[in-house]
Amino acid sequence: MAPGKKGVLERLDAGEVVIGDGGFVFALEKRGYVKAGPWTPEAAAEHPEAVRQLHREFLRAGANVMQTFTFYASDDKLENRGNKLSFTGAQINEAACDLAREVANEGDALVAGGVSQTPSYLSCKSETEVKAIFKRQLDVFIKKDVDFLIAEYFEHVEEAVWAVEVLRETGKTVAACLCIGPEGDMHGVSPGDCAVKLVKAGAQIVGINCHFDPMTCVQAVKMMKEGVEKAGLKAHYIVQPLAFHTPDCSCQGFIDLPEFPFGLEPRILTRWDMHKYAREAYNVGIRFIGGCCGFEPYHIRAIAEELTQERGIVAAGSEKHGMWGAGLEMHTKPWVRARARRDYWENLKPASGRPLCPSMSSPDGWGVTKGHTDLMQQKEATSQDQLKQLFDRSKSH
Amino acid sequence: MAPGKKGVLERLDAGEVVIGDGGFVFALEKRGYVKAGPWTPEAAAEHPEAVRQLHREFLRAGANVMQTFTFYASDDKLENRGNKLSFTGAQINEAACDLAREVANEGDALVAGGVSQTPSYLSCKSETEVKAIFKRQLDVFIKKDVDFLIAEYFEHVEEAVWAVEVLRETGKTVAACLCIGPEGDMHGVSPGDCAVKLVKAGAQIVGINCHFDPMTCVQAVKMMKEGVEKAGLKAHYIVQPLAFHTPDCSCQGFIDLPEFPFGLEPRILTRWDMHKYAREAYNVGIRFIGGCCGFEPYHIRAIAEELTQERGIVAAGSEKHGMWGAGLEMHTKPWVRARARRDYWENLKPASGRPLCPSMSSPDGWGVTKGHTDLMQQKEATSQDQLKQLFDRSKSH
Amino acid sequence: MAPGKKGVLERLDAGEVVIGDGGFVFALEKRGYVKAGPWTPEAAAEHPEAVRQLHREFLRAGANVMQTFTFYASDDKLENRGNKLSFTGAQINEAACDLAREVANEGDALVAGGVSQTPSYLSCKSETEVKAIFKRQLDVFIKKDVDFLIAEYFEHVEEAVWAVEVLRETGKTVAACLCIGPEGDMHGVSPGDCAVKLVKAGAQIVGINCHFDPMTCVQAVKMMKEGVEKAGLKAHYIVQPLAFHTPDCSCQGFIDLPEFPFGLEPRILTRWDMHKYAREAYNVGIRFIGGCCGFEPYHIRAIAEELTQERGIVAAGSEKHGMWGAGLEMHTKPWVRARARRDYWENLKPASGRPLCPSMSSPDGWGVTKGHTDLMQQKEATSQDQLKQLFDRSKSH
Amino acid sequence: MAPGKKGVLERLDAGEVVIGDGGFVFALEKRGYVKAGPWTPEAAAEHPEAVRQLHREFLRAGANVMQTFTFYASDDKLENRGNKLSFTGAQINEAACDLAREVANEGDALVAGGVSQTPSYLSCKSETEVKAIFKRQLDVFIKKDVDFLIAEYFEHVEEAVWAVEVLRETGKTVAACLCIGPEGDMHGVSPGDCAVKLVKAGAQIVGINCHFDPMTCVQAVKMMKEGVEKAGLKAHYIVQPLAFHTPDCSCQGFIDLPEFPFGLEPRILTRWDMHKYAREAYNVGIRFIGGCCGFEPYHIRAIAEELTQERGIVAAGSEKHGMWGAGLEMHTKPWVRARARRDYWENLKPASGRPLCPSMSSPDGWGVTKGHTDLMQQKEATSQDQLKQLFDRSKSH
Repeated sequence: MAPGKKGVLERLDAGEVVIGDGGFVFALEKRGYVKAGPWTPEAAAEHPEAVRQLHREFLRAGANVMQTFTFYASDDKLENRGNKLSFTGAQINEAACDLAREVANEGDALVAGGVSQTPSYLSCKSETEVKAIFKRQLDVFIKKDVDFLIAEYFEHVEEAVWAVEVLRETGKTVAACLCIGPEGDMHGVSPGDCAVKLVKAGAQIVGINCHFDPMTCVQAVKMMKEGVEKAGLKAHYIVQPLAFHTPDCSCQGFIDLPEFPFGLEPRILTRWDMHKYAREAYNVGIRFIGGCCGFEPYHIRAIAEELTQERGIVAAGSEKHGMWGAGLEMHTKPWVRARARRDYWENLKPASGRPLCPSMSSPDGWGVTKGHTDLMQQKEATSQDQLKQLFDRSKSH
Repeated sequence: MAPGKKGVLERLDAGEVVIGDGGFVFALEKRGYVKAGPWTPEAAAEHPEAVRQLHREFLRAGANVMQTFTFYASDDKLENRGNKLSFTGAQINEAACDLAREVANEGDALVAGGVSQTPSYLSCKSETEVKAIFKRQLDVFIKKDVDFLIAEYFEHVEEAVWAVEVLRETGKTVAACLCIGPEGDMHGVSPGDCAVKLVKAGAQIVGINCHFDPMTCVQAVKMMKEGVEKAGLKAHYIVQPLAFHTPDCSCQGFIDLPEFPFGLEPRILTRWDMHKYAREAYNVGIRFIGGCCGFEPYHIRAIAEELTQERGIVAAGSEKHGMWGAGLEMHTKPWVRARARRDYWENLKPASGRPLCPSMSSPDGWGVTKGHTDLMQQKEATSQDQLKQLFDRSKSH
Repeated sequence: MAPGKKGVLERLDAGEVVIGDGGFVFALEKRGYVKAGPWTPEAAAEHPEAVRQLHREFLRAGANVMQTFTFYASDDKLENRGNKLSFTGAQINEAACDLAREVANEGDALVAGGVSQTPSYLSCKSETEVKAIFKRQLDVFIKKDVDFLIAEYFEHVEEAVWAVEVLRETGKTVAACLCIGPEGDMHGVSPGDCAVKLVKAGAQIVGINCHFDPMTCVQAVKMMKEGVEKAGLKAHYIVQPLAFHTPDCSCQGFIDLPEFPFGLEPRILTRWDMHKYAREAYNVGIRFIGGCCGFEPYHIRAIAEELTQERGIVAAGSEKHGMWGAGLEMHTKPWVRARARRDYWENLKPASGRPLCPSMSSPDGWGVTKGHTDLMQQKEATSQDQLKQLFDRSKSH
Repeated sequence: MAPGKKGVLERLDAGEVVIGDGGFVFALEKRGYVKAGPWTPEAAAEHPEAVRQLHREFLRAGANVMQTFTFYASDDKLENRGNKLSFTGAQINEAACDLAREVANEGDALVAGGVSQTPSYLSCKSETEVKAIFKRQLDVFIKKDVDFLIAEYFEHVEEAVWAVEVLRETGKTVAACLCIGPEGDMHGVSPGDCAVKLVKAGAQIVGINCHFDPMTCVQAVKMMKEGVEKAGLKAHYIVQPLAFHTPDCSCQGFIDLPEFPFGLEPRILTRWDMHKYAREAYNVGIRFIGGCCGFEPYHIRAIAEELTQERGIVAAGSEKHGMWGAGLEMHTKPWVRARARRDYWENLKPASGRPLCPSMSSPDGWGVTKGHTDLMQQKEATSQDQLKQLFDRSKSH
């Protein structure tokens, strides 16, 4: 860590807001460096300039954390991806650490080494085998001396607990994120119970990333917080949601939406949606607030701008923005200049420009057809039997 | 031009498809380097690494043209933007040329120097004064020896003609794009008549950029082509539309939509929409096919992928994609793997995830309220009186 | 005609507004007395109480015209409908006249005998044969002494002219309505030219009924009026549109929408939409204002309420309504009472409650697929070639 | 009861399906005989022919029950409505009984005398006073010898229990319906607990009417059934929902939607939605299946058609329909004839024709603004505090 920088726990203990970065796999897929499907991060080694630039943009937007671009970079996943890569897992993980550190040094950011769920777990390998997978990535993080660790994108709390147990052995701060919603993990373990398990395993920061839209994730973290407090435990909280509206998701999140992953554009959150998200997360007591798939740098900037007062910091990127669209005051047309105000953007209901498209979808993957009105039923139905059935299915592939 | 590279006219004369790049101001606004409102390109000098990276992504996506990032970089516009910049107009224009050339040299791309409409014209300066403004940018383009020139984003054909007249004096190939729709320019001059004026002024390539969605722009270029052919003239055709669906625009395009510029997300085209656009543009006889505001590298890649057969080239970026989402065959969930096929994505009607939002908006700026059913009327109404009224208004600011 | 009642022409010549009734086949289909598909009016003889009650409701709503329920009651159509009916064509037509007269006598309404397009024309029978069909219905109207005649629901102006020629021989006033939109009849004859032909054939009142939503029909009648005036002729104008929003129709109207006829509910106009329609029709100079398929009595009442000032009459039915929802002032909940005001209802954008449904459809019957953004193109395309093709097809069945 | 007719309990005990009628106040408001706001049924005395005709249409559609048109016909409500009526409460109630009996005698239908919630309860009158109000309507029902009794449209289970206690004294079968959703009554009493209270008070048939769409009501009745069974009690079940889609309602139902009551058209269920409703209700074990506000005769006919096999009866009204739109086989256009099939209509997602309108609304009456994504939160939130707050408010008016 650069001299004079406070660690993540130090910041959170002091009540500061820590702003996370956005998701790399989706952003770099759109930029041409990640393949949708395998979603592996070999670009860290293949195209370092592209990864470095994305880090810089998030830093400039206000992020205090540079996550190493090591999502799905476990050896079992990299082998699993079909095409032979030109780099080893260790090379990819090392390159990712170097890029994160280089950019973190350019500002007030920390480097977080990240691990995520493994094919080994899904194909029923033993705890020992799965933990060995995590250990191999961890060796790189230790060598590169990352500032703290994040275990994220786990659908099964059991695997997340194993990951936390491995990461904790380093003595570094550990954050743990499940990719679940208010209905809990793939075994039906509630967010509250999941959080308790993670804290007991040694995570100091717990929360949610990916799979659901910001408000749903905030709600699920709130349930985690209630669970932890009810159990008489203590933790800090993190949320790194999608930048897509997903009111129509079932328990597996946006993966099951028919639009995943190549038709999600109409769901992308505006910067103003991000203001509401940041405020809500803050109000709920979450202090590590970032993003995942779909987040572009301006989304992170919106979080930073919403929390300017609380943080006492204006991000570098805001020089090219101005609060609530103030830059529009320089527009040539008077009716566009009239939009340079908070209530205009707060109340806008943006149109899709797609009159032949609906506003919600029926998620795939359940084998049940859904009527127009059974949203509530659907939410209820995603329990017991269906969860078991789904879990069996996901285990078998 | 790098030795061995064919010029733009040579390519078009040979019947080749030339793929343009995407718009820089919107893409860099989201990345944190351009301010919405003034929309000026000082980032070319301030943050060259960000501009270079975007060039590279478009190159990798398949673009054959690197447009210099000199939109709104005329001296009168740069002075107009409120904040004092740290760089002179000449420095910004030169830096933009250098970046475009550097990346063009990395692949099969040409450098196009670009000028756009000026505040001088809108504030009723004389032809001599306006032409002097263009001349100053042109001096840089000559010094940096760009491969050809593009005059683009003109709402008034008169000013575009002046620009073409100035650019033609260099002897370089000139492309000219208006930002109009099928209803014509702000004086009510039809697309066909506009195109004839531009060709007569010396443009070898004419067409449309910005302000409307791809299908609308293609339709307007088709009208240009019909006008040129009817007049017994010859030209090549270019289209560089928005990556936003704008079925509800009136004659000034997306500027008048209530969502402009910070709530356009639900309108962003998917890659599959881009396939349809590329095919339609090709069928209409347009051979210079690119993009403007809203285009991200993957949108350009989709154009390249749709026209793979016709071009006989696979873009570098397609290594991380595969036609029609083939990469999904490697997904862990079988119902996601089932999406790795053309007809799935061609027929998808993507949901907005926004049940409280409509699918169309009423454009601002007309002083008339619009009912639900009068789309056709609205289109008709945007003529004579209203155009005059609007034109008067836009002149006065 | 009851003593003291003014004839329709007398009223229109005096500048009065004549309010028509709503369509019977759709309203009675929902009440259980008409079969969708054949759409024949045998209920006039089979279930007179149901037909009488609907007449009464329209009278009470403010209608000045009771149209005999004789739509598709020509002998060739009744024979064509598959099932054998228990009544002859003459019996059905006579029963319909008696019911209309009975209710007309209860208020200030006139009886209009109506004929509509025939299977004989569509199967290419001769002018003599088609005219003989109209003549047979006309004999009943003469015997029952209706007050005036309406030839309506003609897709082909040629057949409408034949009908007018037959009806005119009686010396009674003749109104003639085509079921076309702004693009003209099935041969591509423009609304203006159609109107001129009808006036020259002897119609004193010309206009549009069915197939399109109110604003589209008003626009088409406006085009008729312009045509008639340009030709130096004189006429009165009538409009009796659908009560369904149809912004997405092609030239054959709502028949081609996928929702026709059993899924049109989300398109039903509110009473407030009807206020806008009535005002627009009045402003355009139309003075015979009524409705067709989809109209319920409260829709006609809304027309009467919008034109209360102009007519100086409050319809009986308004005793159970009050202008702009004034009756809500008696509601128990304060937030519902707050809705008892004009601007609330004028500005409401009513939700569909159907998040899985789009806001527009692609019409069937063209053999061409439509993109998201080509609304304008679509409108243009419905001309020359396609019309001919469609006409050929419709002729052959 | 006509000789040979089986009573409602006899039918239900035998496992037969009893089909209810649709709501009268909304249907007659559209026909011009009921005033929205007060919603009182004086038309039974003022315009008997209109009420008789609506009864006949529901009978013809397949209804086995003619409910007396006595909704809000308690003396306290009639006095409360502002305008002085020309008939006494007794006259209105008697006229309603006569009309229901007259039409019931024309087919296989029973007469049900109905009472509904009273202003007396809402203004905190005593149990004795409220019961006296019910008693006065009941006297008429006894005099006219209705076949059974329905207490319906109660938001507070306490008042419904009082009503049942009064009605039970007659010895006639009593059905009791609350107008609540899955979240329970206005005091937060769950559907299961409400049902137990009603059964214990003496109701033999319990269920839900009004306020929510069919699927939501079926779900709430299912919860009632589970509550009753868990308590070791026995009952029959009834559901008479809205014919409007209301996925966006909060706990007070459609009253709080901004569209209530004059902008609900886009929410009207199609006949095909009714098929799904009837099947779902049947599958859940409900055997008294009817409708409330928004139901037109063809909606009831759709229920009868869906359950044709189970009932072994084809309703008279189906002679003008045919299963799954079979009548379209007689249409003149081949692409419309192609719609005469079940899967076409079952899978249709009908468009609204309203591109400027959203698909969901934010309900009024809560004093809280709702974001785009908090549907679930919203459902959760409608409990404890908010219910109490709302209840206090509704009590005070």
